Amino acid sequence: MAKKAPLISQRADTMQASPLRKLAATAEVRKKKGVHVYHLNIGQPDLPTHPDFFKAARAYKPKTIAYAPSTGLEAPREAWSTYYKKSGINFNAEDIIITSGGSEGIIFALEAVCDVGDEVLVFEPFYTNYNSFASLTGVKLKPVTLDIKDGFHLPSDKEIKSKITKRTKAILVCNPSNPTGTIFTKQEMKRLVSIAKQKNLFVLSDEVYREFAFEHKHTSIMDFPEIRQQAIVLDSASKRFNVCGARVGVVASKNKEVMAAVFKMAMARLSVASIDQEALVPMLKDPKKYTKDMVKEFKKRREIVYNGLKKIPGITFSKPEGAFYIIIGLPVKDADHFATWMIKTFHDKKETVLLAPAEGFYATKGKGKQEVRLAFMLKEKDLKRSLELLAMALEKYKG
Amino acid sequence: MAKKAPLISQRADTMQASPLRKLAATAEVRKKKGVHVYHLNIGQPDLPTHPDFFKAARAYKPKTIAYAPSTGLEAPREAWSTYYKKSGINFNAEDIIITSGGSEGIIFALEAVCDVGDEVLVFEPFYTNYNSFASLTGVKLKPVTLDIKDGFHLPSDKEIKSKITKRTKAILVCNPSNPTGTIFTKQEMKRLVSIAKQKNLFVLSDEVYREFAFEHKHTSIMDFPEIRQQAIVLDSASKRFNVCGARVGVVASKNKEVMAAVFKMAMARLSVASIDQEALVPMLKDPKKYTKDMVKEFKKRREIVYNGLKKIPGITFSKPEGAFYIIIGLPVKDADHFATWMIKTFHDKKETVLLAPAEGFYATKGKGKQEVRLAFMLKEKDLKRSLELLAMALEKYKG
Repeated sequence: MAKKAPLISQRADTMQASPLRKLAATAEVRKKKGVHVYHLNIGQPDLPTHPDFFKAARAYKPKTIAYAPSTGLEAPREAWSTYYKKSGINFNAEDIIITSGGSEGIIFALEAVCDVGDEVLVFEPFYTNYNSFASLTGVKLKPVTLDIKDGFHLPSDKEIKSKITKRTKAILVCNPSNPTGTIFTKQEMKRLVSIAKQKNLFVLSDEVYREFAFEHKHTSIMDFPEIRQQAIVLDSASKRFNVCGARVGVVASKNKEVMAAVFKMAMARLSVASIDQEALVPMLKDPKKYTKDMVKEFKKRREIVYNGLKKIPGITFSKPEGAFYIIIGLPVKDADHFATWMIKTFHDKKETVLLAPAEGFYATKGKGKQEVRLAFMLKEKDLKRSLELLAMALEKYKG
Repeated sequence: MAKKAPLISQRADTMQASPLRKLAATAEVRKKKGVHVYHLNIGQPDLPTHPDFFKAARAYKPKTIAYAPSTGLEAPREAWSTYYKKSGINFNAEDIIITSGGSEGIIFALEAVCDVGDEVLVFEPFYTNYNSFASLTGVKLKPVTLDIKDGFHLPSDKEIKSKITKRTKAILVCNPSNPTGTIFTKQEMKRLVSIAKQKNLFVLSDEVYREFAFEHKHTSIMDFPEIRQQAIVLDSASKRFNVCGARVGVVASKNKEVMAAVFKMAMARLSVASIDQEALVPMLKDPKKYTKDMVKEFKKRREIVYNGLKKIPGITFSKPEGAFYIIIGLPVKDADHFATWMIKTFHDKKETVLLAPAEGFYATKGKGKQEVRLAFMLKEKDLKRSLELLAMALEKYKG
């Protein structure tokens, strides 16, 4: 008998496949059967990218498309600093390292502050890829569960502190939050800052949705001078400028040791794509011009979703305060089963909806079983129709 | 007394800074003093990038610059398959995942086949960033030392096998080799294949310099059908098409489990920059058109370096067979000390040379102390002058 090929690693074997893409293949099958599928499952903005991005990309014509400096090209790095200063955050170019999307930045930050087996506090439900980054870096995520009934706001300090052990190195917070749409208030952020100070933890602050704050202003971790040496901002141009395919993010911090560590990792992978770094410069220098209309559009969509959901009996939810997501509780036993049934079987006039079951956003087994996440990536009319379809499906469904 | 900020991780602290960039700051200081510095230290081609790259980049004008599929955009993935087939390697699009440069691909492959603490055989001297990738992934590199007197060709099977332990998961081989310029012959590759078969190891084959083969044809790991299920090709467009700043590479394998694992990692970081993937399509579809002249140019430079070195007394070296590097032995006790002296103090007519001390390419402590790596990134005249300067410096130097 022929010998079998060697086995892949355990960490690769046990790593999650993206829960967001789990039902994508089923959706494709359904589309081929002539059913129109409304995608409420993914966070890829449907709006056009501003032409200035392509203009700047075209204007970048070096003789040789050479490695950029590992920290980022000079003009884009300066432009990121300008962006931060216009957003009330005092990062200089040297506090910033440009990364290949926000994802690479999160990996770098986890590697910089954690050794294998170290722990990081996260608030669940959380951005599902945090799980993958933790697997890749050998870091253990310790979830603090947020309650849908509190609009996914913070539990007591005692509850949070109870999850901190000797191996805890950092608190990872996404604010405004994907997937909940919650914005932690200044008071809540202050509480996290106090805990981090008291326990001597880093705060990894994912502020990708900074501009998408509808109810009250977003509070950056950098608004607290007392935590500056422990704060690492994780960021991305993807959502706010609608350039997901450009893959440009940053890690930024006033802590020189952290930045020196991130620089070493950045050197290992040489550089980030030069054209994409440069293409973002105009947007970074004048951010409001590019984010204003988009924020307005998503604020409008939020109202549509809110009003649509109010009409569906048995749904648990709060009005999202930021980002462009919401997690809702469904009156079903198993939201995954419901979502699968909906995409596989249900239709009204040959139309159905693809949902993202929320279990994948939790680390605690069994949590989120009755919840799904919706992303507001459809135009007004389609959003309304999607919620109508959801209501019909819930009525028809026998779980 | 104020509490100090928390400490960064040990792995970040002990991670190497790039040895290639170690003397870069000193070089900048020297330049400011009006001394011209010839860079023999880095592998960034000085030739212009073909205009077709920029043309294709400009032609890519989607409405929205959206996330590409995690595996890569369809047309570029197909184009990579075309490229491989034209290079005599039968990879279909589904065997290929596009990565952010070759670097990301190496990290993915190490994660896919190794758990933390697992071992990978490498041949030293090796591409220095392998060290960083190993740190990042918790993998232990086990060096098999190659001898400059054998032109850095393979030692005996016995010697190689003596480094294999129960924790060894793979052999990582760079062929043609950065930093040595050596190409393992078909017979040598066959020996590695036999060892990998016998010990049930993966072969991670870094074939970034495939086209730069001057003495005899390059042998791909895919030329051995018997190893196909254990072979993972690591590749990059950077060098062969002179597009280092585009950051496009691939992982390719016929092993479905490996590719499923790499796919999960690719999903976690969402996608690779879309413009850059697309910009490469014309080059991938007609590779010879773009590589031909460059290969010719580097072949010419190799002759210049070879002839220049022959005139310097006391140098140990073999004629490089591929890539565009050479490691040479210097008649000094400490090549790092010599290189530092050369960039800091030495000049002839206000000109000097920046070398890369070879110690950073070895994992075994103390190895390579008398060696430096040269990269052929200068035009004929400048290359000649650099070697003249090296000869003068060696004569003047009191180590």
